[in-house]
Amino acid sequence: MILVNGAESDALPAADRGLAYGDGVFRTLAIRGGRPRSWTRQYRKLAGDCAALAIPSPAEEVLRGELAQVAKREPDCAAKIIVTRGIGQRGYAPPSPLHPTRIVMSAAPLRYPVEFARAGVKVHLCSLRLGFQPALAGVKHLNRLENVLARSEWSAPDIAEGLLLDAEGNAIAGTMTNLFIIEGGGLATPDLGRCGVAGVTRERVVEAAARHGMACRVEHVSLDRVLQAQEVLLVNSLIGVWQVRELSDRTWQPGVLVSGVREWLHEEDD
Amino acid sequence: MILVNGAESDALPAADRGLAYGDGVFRTLAIRGGRPRSWTRQYRKLAGDCAALAIPSPAEEVLRGELAQVAKREPDCAAKIIVTRGIGQRGYAPPSPLHPTRIVMSAAPLRYPVEFARAGVKVHLCSLRLGFQPALAGVKHLNRLENVLARSEWSAPDIAEGLLLDAEGNAIAGTMTNLFIIEGGGLATPDLGRCGVAGVTRERVVEAAARHGMACRVEHVSLDRVLQAQEVLLVNSLIGVWQVRELSDRTWQPGVLVSGVREWLHEEDD
Repeated sequence: MILVNGAESDALPAADRGLAYGDGVFRTLAIRGGRPRSWTRQYRKLAGDCAALAIPSPAEEVLRGELAQVAKREPDCAAKIIVTRGIGQRGYAPPSPLHPTRIVMSAAPLRYPVEFARAGVKVHLCSLRLGFQPALAGVKHLNRLENVLARSEWSAPDIAEGLLLDAEGNAIAGTMTNLFIIEGGGLATPDLGRCGVAGVTRERVVEAAARHGMACRVEHVSLDRVLQAQEVLLVNSLIGVWQVRELSDRTWQPGVLVSGVREWLHEEDD
Repeated sequence: MILVNGAESDALPAADRGLAYGDGVFRTLAIRGGRPRSWTRQYRKLAGDCAALAIPSPAEEVLRGELAQVAKREPDCAAKIIVTRGIGQRGYAPPSPLHPTRIVMSAAPLRYPVEFARAGVKVHLCSLRLGFQPALAGVKHLNRLENVLARSEWSAPDIAEGLLLDAEGNAIAGTMTNLFIIEGGGLATPDLGRCGVAGVTRERVVEAAARHGMACRVEHVSLDRVLQAQEVLLVNSLIGVWQVRELSDRTWQPGVLVSGVREWLHEEDD
């Protein structure tokens, strides 16, 4: 099901700036049992990302209503929300008046082997390095060619994800996941002030760690630290958490703390 | 007029990866007297940009035919060609099989004051700095949020363009133009190996300079060099060439060499 500005349609005007320039933001979230997961948080992030691009955010109740329409038809699916700056005249200058386009759509969740969650995943070390752009860092915008190029580096089905480094060699994230490492019994996750996307599940883990009295540092994380970590975790709203089982020459046994993080993500959050 | 995969339509499937990720490339070119300008060169650049993203390029004769349809109805317009990786499943991995989407559309040329070409333009020095991404540099892809953010820095109608620096302070380009400086009677244009878009008109000027026995260096160009240049020129396929009249504290009188470059761009090129 696809709703474009509230009407069922699968068509976007070809002159939309979301296509022309990637001038917009998006969210991917799970709908389970007819309810969007972590909706309050998802909406807050969407509104914040809109603000970062000076796009007026759709009202919370409008999106909630449209998600409910989708959820009624598909109570267990992956939902995607896209908000763009709308139709533009030719040229980069923002249109005036501005009528943002909103798209709410469902997709069958990608089916990953159950082993990915149970036994951990094999991860490709991407050769593409993320460039620095502080003005856009953290924002889940529609300019995702770096992710596309990185994801095209492997096709083997037993590789679940790719790890992205930045131009200085710091580990930043997976192509579709955020990264946590466990070392000395505490957590760390890369600082995303220069590149990367600050996902909702990352935020949930950071907050849950604090609530449960576990240290979680947000800072630069070198590839060496990742390779020396006790456990390495990848998270997002659809997969929850995967432990990394293999990366470069390093392998890990199923860990202990990954289960704790998984428990945190099962806690109520709406 | 808008042709989507050859059929007149103004609708793009909402699941197209051009929207989802900016996963595609584009061209903007002038149609004058029913003929696309510099078509051989425009097509070569489009095909090269497609190759950079591993998107199969539409055949030259297909696009030429669709441009002819547009030109028949609108013999003097700005034409835009967009090629995307097509409709995707959810996720960054490229779809297989791959069916690229091609869009050929016309737009009325933006009307700039005649003084811009005659007397030169006032240019805003953008505070946004272009990030480095060698894997995408030079390619005219659909990830153009940096240009959008830069263009939103000013709204005064007497400012014609914004000058973009890179993260190290080198001058790279305007938001929609390439940059040349004239110093010591020779030309220089920024190296675009780390960021920026290598436009067709830039290529034409570089080649014409060689043909006319004028040196044209392609190298890093600091902002200081721009401010100290004898003449500063901005070029693209729609405007031709504008001389910069004002940038930061510097002003320039109408120059001599700008006319020569303008002559070069009037030469046959098809």
